[in-house]
Amino acid sequence: MRVAFQGEPGAYSEQALHKYFEEEGIRVEGVPCESLEDVILEVESGKAPGGIIPVENSIGGYVDRSYKLISQGNVYVNGEVYLRVRHSLLAIDGADLSQVDTVYSHPQALKQCREFLFDLEVETRATYDTAGSAKMVKKKKDPRLAAIASKFAGEKYGLKVLMEDIQTAGNNHTRFLLVSRETRSERMACENYKTTITFELGDGAGSLYECLAPFAEKDINLTMIQSRPTETGRWEYHFDLELEGHRKDVPVNSAIAELNQLVPEVQVLGSYPRGKVS
Amino acid sequence: MRVAFQGEPGAYSEQALHKYFEEEGIRVEGVPCESLEDVILEVESGKAPGGIIPVENSIGGYVDRSYKLISQGNVYVNGEVYLRVRHSLLAIDGADLSQVDTVYSHPQALKQCREFLFDLEVETRATYDTAGSAKMVKKKKDPRLAAIASKFAGEKYGLKVLMEDIQTAGNNHTRFLLVSRETRSERMACENYKTTITFELGDGAGSLYECLAPFAEKDINLTMIQSRPTETGRWEYHFDLELEGHRKDVPVNSAIAELNQLVPEVQVLGSYPRGKVS
Repeated sequence: MRVAFQGEPGAYSEQALHKYFEEEGIRVEGVPCESLEDVILEVESGKAPGGIIPVENSIGGYVDRSYKLISQGNVYVNGEVYLRVRHSLLAIDGADLSQVDTVYSHPQALKQCREFLFDLEVETRATYDTAGSAKMVKKKKDPRLAAIASKFAGEKYGLKVLMEDIQTAGNNHTRFLLVSRETRSERMACENYKTTITFELGDGAGSLYECLAPFAEKDINLTMIQSRPTETGRWEYHFDLELEGHRKDVPVNSAIAELNQLVPEVQVLGSYPRGKVS
Repeated sequence: MRVAFQGEPGAYSEQALHKYFEEEGIRVEGVPCESLEDVILEVESGKAPGGIIPVENSIGGYVDRSYKLISQGNVYVNGEVYLRVRHSLLAIDGADLSQVDTVYSHPQALKQCREFLFDLEVETRATYDTAGSAKMVKKKKDPRLAAIASKFAGEKYGLKVLMEDIQTAGNNHTRFLLVSRETRSERMACENYKTTITFELGDGAGSLYECLAPFAEKDINLTMIQSRPTETGRWEYHFDLELEGHRKDVPVNSAIAELNQLVPEVQVLGSYPRGKVS
């Protein structure tokens, strides 16, 4: 199965999609895309039956525009996967840590490894992405150059791992959602489900509170809430909400129906088996 | 007055702090810092009486870690300012648009100007920040090189504006909060205030709903809500909440007191005059 992801081959998103589908026992091929918009387009057009979108990081918070892109696209959320982000220092075969004088990576990855890089006393250069840096280091064939990316990216480009786990914060996880053109309608009894919905609200007092009432009254656990500016320039907000349960479960179904009476539109992005944090 | 900001001189954050203090009639000097952590440190240590932190963007959503840094620091929020992000293409004096073959900027700014850059048929290079790219273009003195940054950064480095407003999306605003070591306690009758609070919640059903009840019952308008993973690795959430009113207003004060009964701790980050979107 072809699954679209944003980034160069070897990106953390590609690693996450392998993790997800291997757990499901499905062989996949990652389709690299330049932007998250392109991931959605690949799925909408049917060129790739699936796509993966990062939505949340345990250090950085929400990923730019992810929920917005999913809700605007003609796609559904059918899965969730957590990936622990572990940065490695990669160089060409034969290179030695003491030779390295320049390290390439995305500004965020460089920041996350700041202490390691400071001790190493090297120059750092910002790039578009982590895997792209690995690709470039491979191409340049210079043992003085290294990239910060995943071990997975290192394997992809035949690079040597000079050092593993060089990030400062230990608990760096990213949560991804799997999207596809069709919604997976079956609900398996053995699974714990989550459902993602999105809706827009006026700026009225108490109205968010009113919107949450149907869920509270039915003891439905909310796992995430986010207000997100609409693009009207008036700083009105969309709300992205995640809750425990499947949209076909009676309490979830009727809570969403009640919410539908309170706001212009509720969009159910999908129900999916809860991913494991590991 | 010295005010700390993250980035090189000429950063959008520095432009925003000038906008804020000039409206207040106060002369300021921006203090560039490498990271948002350093901005908080400068303020905590008293080296700079004020600091500015970007929190939200109308396109990108929330800025990484901003509310977390403010709530963990020993600082208070005393002001709010909105800045419209307008990107310019900058080059050295004498350079001409037709000569430019390489454009430097932060990956996000490059992305926001993708259509313009595509039509220009130039190479793009990722850097740490927009203003830093302007600084580098100035230093290299090569008319074939250009940077994407603000006009403000162009003035800072004596660069020529080759083209203004090259971003694709028209409505790109960033919201910043002003922090200082002391809380501004006076409440001026003429002003509309906002208050920012933060609290942690267990994963219990309905509990966010219960926490919002005190505000809904008192007709207090919520202007922003965000759940943010705690760093425990258990994906529990902090909530950042913004509401209309001053913490000394009777309804706000008692709503916060009621919330305090429901959760382990409520942190009031500050009350401040509402900024204008312009």
